[in-house]
Amino acid sequence: MSFSNKTLQLDDEQRLLHFLTIDGLDRATLTEILDTAEGFTGVSERTIKKVPLCRGKVVANLFFETSTRTRTTFELAAKRLSADVLNLNISASATSKGETLLDTLRNLEAMHVDMFIVRHASSGTAHFIAQHADRGVGVINAGDGRHAHPTQAMLDMFTIRRHKGEFAGLRVAIVGDVLHSRVARSQILALNTLGVSEVRAVAPRTLLPSDARSLGVHVYHNMEEGIWDVDVIIMLRLQKERMQGALLPSEHEYFSLYGLTEKRLALADSEAIVMHPGPINRGVEMDSQVADGSKSVILQQVSYGIAIRMAVISKVIGTQNLRMQEVAG
Amino acid sequence: MSFSNKTLQLDDEQRLLHFLTIDGLDRATLTEILDTAEGFTGVSERTIKKVPLCRGKVVANLFFETSTRTRTTFELAAKRLSADVLNLNISASATSKGETLLDTLRNLEAMHVDMFIVRHASSGTAHFIAQHADRGVGVINAGDGRHAHPTQAMLDMFTIRRHKGEFAGLRVAIVGDVLHSRVARSQILALNTLGVSEVRAVAPRTLLPSDARSLGVHVYHNMEEGIWDVDVIIMLRLQKERMQGALLPSEHEYFSLYGLTEKRLALADSEAIVMHPGPINRGVEMDSQVADGSKSVILQQVSYGIAIRMAVISKVIGTQNLRMQEVAG
Amino acid sequence: MSFSNKTLQLDDEQRLLHFLTIDGLDRATLTEILDTAEGFTGVSERTIKKVPLCRGKVVANLFFETSTRTRTTFELAAKRLSADVLNLNISASATSKGETLLDTLRNLEAMHVDMFIVRHASSGTAHFIAQHADRGVGVINAGDGRHAHPTQAMLDMFTIRRHKGEFAGLRVAIVGDVLHSRVARSQILALNTLGVSEVRAVAPRTLLPSDARSLGVHVYHNMEEGIWDVDVIIMLRLQKERMQGALLPSEHEYFSLYGLTEKRLALADSEAIVMHPGPINRGVEMDSQVADGSKSVILQQVSYGIAIRMAVISKVIGTQNLRMQEVAG
Repeated sequence: MSFSNKTLQLDDEQRLLHFLTIDGLDRATLTEILDTAEGFTGVSERTIKKVPLCRGKVVANLFFETSTRTRTTFELAAKRLSADVLNLNISASATSKGETLLDTLRNLEAMHVDMFIVRHASSGTAHFIAQHADRGVGVINAGDGRHAHPTQAMLDMFTIRRHKGEFAGLRVAIVGDVLHSRVARSQILALNTLGVSEVRAVAPRTLLPSDARSLGVHVYHNMEEGIWDVDVIIMLRLQKERMQGALLPSEHEYFSLYGLTEKRLALADSEAIVMHPGPINRGVEMDSQVADGSKSVILQQVSYGIAIRMAVISKVIGTQNLRMQEVAG
Repeated sequence: MSFSNKTLQLDDEQRLLHFLTIDGLDRATLTEILDTAEGFTGVSERTIKKVPLCRGKVVANLFFETSTRTRTTFELAAKRLSADVLNLNISASATSKGETLLDTLRNLEAMHVDMFIVRHASSGTAHFIAQHADRGVGVINAGDGRHAHPTQAMLDMFTIRRHKGEFAGLRVAIVGDVLHSRVARSQILALNTLGVSEVRAVAPRTLLPSDARSLGVHVYHNMEEGIWDVDVIIMLRLQKERMQGALLPSEHEYFSLYGLTEKRLALADSEAIVMHPGPINRGVEMDSQVADGSKSVILQQVSYGIAIRMAVISKVIGTQNLRMQEVAG
Repeated sequence: MSFSNKTLQLDDEQRLLHFLTIDGLDRATLTEILDTAEGFTGVSERTIKKVPLCRGKVVANLFFETSTRTRTTFELAAKRLSADVLNLNISASATSKGETLLDTLRNLEAMHVDMFIVRHASSGTAHFIAQHADRGVGVINAGDGRHAHPTQAMLDMFTIRRHKGEFAGLRVAIVGDVLHSRVARSQILALNTLGVSEVRAVAPRTLLPSDARSLGVHVYHNMEEGIWDVDVIIMLRLQKERMQGALLPSEHEYFSLYGLTEKRLALADSEAIVMHPGPINRGVEMDSQVADGSKSVILQQVSYGIAIRMAVISKVIGTQNLRMQEVAG
């Protein structure tokens, strides 16, 4: 499953046209996004939480899969950039009216929508839309099937950089359902691109892809060994709705084997941070003391998510504006 | 079924108070709307797609019948005029609380909403609301039953004028389910008012009203004859959900008799344009080569829809502002 | 059932931090809210219905119980103050994802939402959220269970003051389902705090709390006696959906005993006004002649509702701004 396409995301001058996947982006590009987000963290803390960068632009949330949380962070990010936001929840009903995805896309383009934030249960949908989009329209992947969730990965990188300063030398453990996680896939790519020294995948065999090692991770089936001495622990959400059949004995047994407790957390580096993409299943992935404890940076991830999304939206819209000026001038 | 009422839509000085139906509006009024829309086509193509004409006004989308597409175009039009938009999907639930339509209307007026965009499955609802609305409130009909859909008709007229320049001398064929189509009814009125030389209705007997000729159309039951030498072909949507009983043998047979193909299209004038209100049922009303072909102006209709809706909203709000000043001064 | 907590709603300098209940607020505080609303009544009647007081602030409508009407008035009030509005309808689905109310709250705070407007079927939810909210976040109760609906009570007080000038000397009858009404509970507190001379509760025994007198009302079971010579009649909505079992014989019998008719209205003071929180069940709580008659101020209540909500939102946001400046400076 590979939809990476450097020439699809970047133009000839390495400017961001779309943001679809971490795959194919180099360290300089990722660092530039992190640096841009740095400048936006202040905006959300001002009395007037708005900058006029995207005034008069229309950003459409094209969510084929419901996600109030992700939709809300994109909506807030777009509004803080002064864009107008259109929320379109597209369910089976539109399809039942006989309209194809491409027809929907063409219609929204004809209305001069500037950007699509796409969420879909099928891998590759955001790429498909970007491939067929007008040159004036930017596409951001807000999660496609099991493939990628690049803004989530970037907000995680931002959180790590804020706490650890440098990526070089870090050991990071990703714990849980790596097999079904688009988040994990994007995180592994970003961590390796940014140059951490070791990425570990900690999970039972049934929740790891068969080619896990080829993703660039060290595989651990034992939790205690997996988080030993790491600087960052990323707990994945146990996506019950994604699992089919008897991959897991029970939530209780999962917690006993892979749940993060204070006792286990003590095995990591004394300065380790604990992350989770949310929403947490308390008592399944971790217990409440850890979730609410001093090493948890889970709520900071949410805050930084707004800054990262502002960065990505404004960079893509910025590329469009520059290209329009080049055509005009 | 006639709800036309010149004095309801226009005030003594011929200014637009509401926009409910094409019926009763003269050529000068329709032309003025087209000319106003002309000025707005540029706004959607600017870097900052906004004009401050309706700043501080509240436009309520009062949709008793779901239509994401139409609602979205009105929302975008209102936002490009800098108005605030309130989306109210009013289903059976409100009625079940025992509140009448008039009570809902009075409540929204009391909140100082400036305009209602009304969509309803029953013919005459927008007129009913306009009749009972406060003098400071404008009403726009976004489709009522089988009666009228005047903004759709106006965006079609705009598209025709953009491509053909003049209405005089044009032959226009409307193909399909004229019987159930509020769009067709409004188009026929507009085309005749603007002075085309011939309007044709092309459909099987079962999809034509019994009084079709009295609408001011030439009736054709044969597709090849009906589109022979015409300048404009308007394909109607086959509204499966509206049809009851055995009006049609099958979609397949419908396409074989009335579907627009490249071969049939060659019978029209060599400069003919193809229109459709969307969403298209590909392979039912027309095949994909025609829909995506060089003579199709279907996506331009969508773009022009924003400009026409900006024109109608701003004219109605403009009338209100002038009348308020007259009262004040 | 008491969630009053003076120190929760007010800071040490008696500034409004949250607006959760009338309980614990003194006459000066209520009067200040009414005076602030007075200044906002003009905004809704201007050509440009907007003031920049809350520009760049994010107000989240956190509705766990659907109410299009109340949600709309808060949305309009926030938009007229130039705030951005986030509508979150939180149903069982979020809970089914395993996230607790506190996790939802923490996440929205992390996104730097400035204010929560909370509606919930359980009494005390707004208080619970305010107790756990960040110091930078304001909470407004938009109705919690049978407990309180303080903005509704304040708009009623505003309507009374507009018509009667002073509260001293007024006799006010509240008629109907006092037992299940959070509105009545808040009204009684506000009327007594503002110093009316008499508050009457008029209802059958089955629709009155057993401790009715301790609320500070005079109890009447006979409608004619209850509204005799009063200055203000507040009809409550018969909340059919709230009633369980056989508390009432039938709507018809209810109307015959407690319905407000022209004939009964004549028993009140000749200058009496008639109020209702809406939506009215015509022919159940009152007949249409009364609802639409010259003594009815029901639609004015809706208009004043926007001004009162603007007042409360802007006062709470104002307190936050002042406290931020104090911390900063």
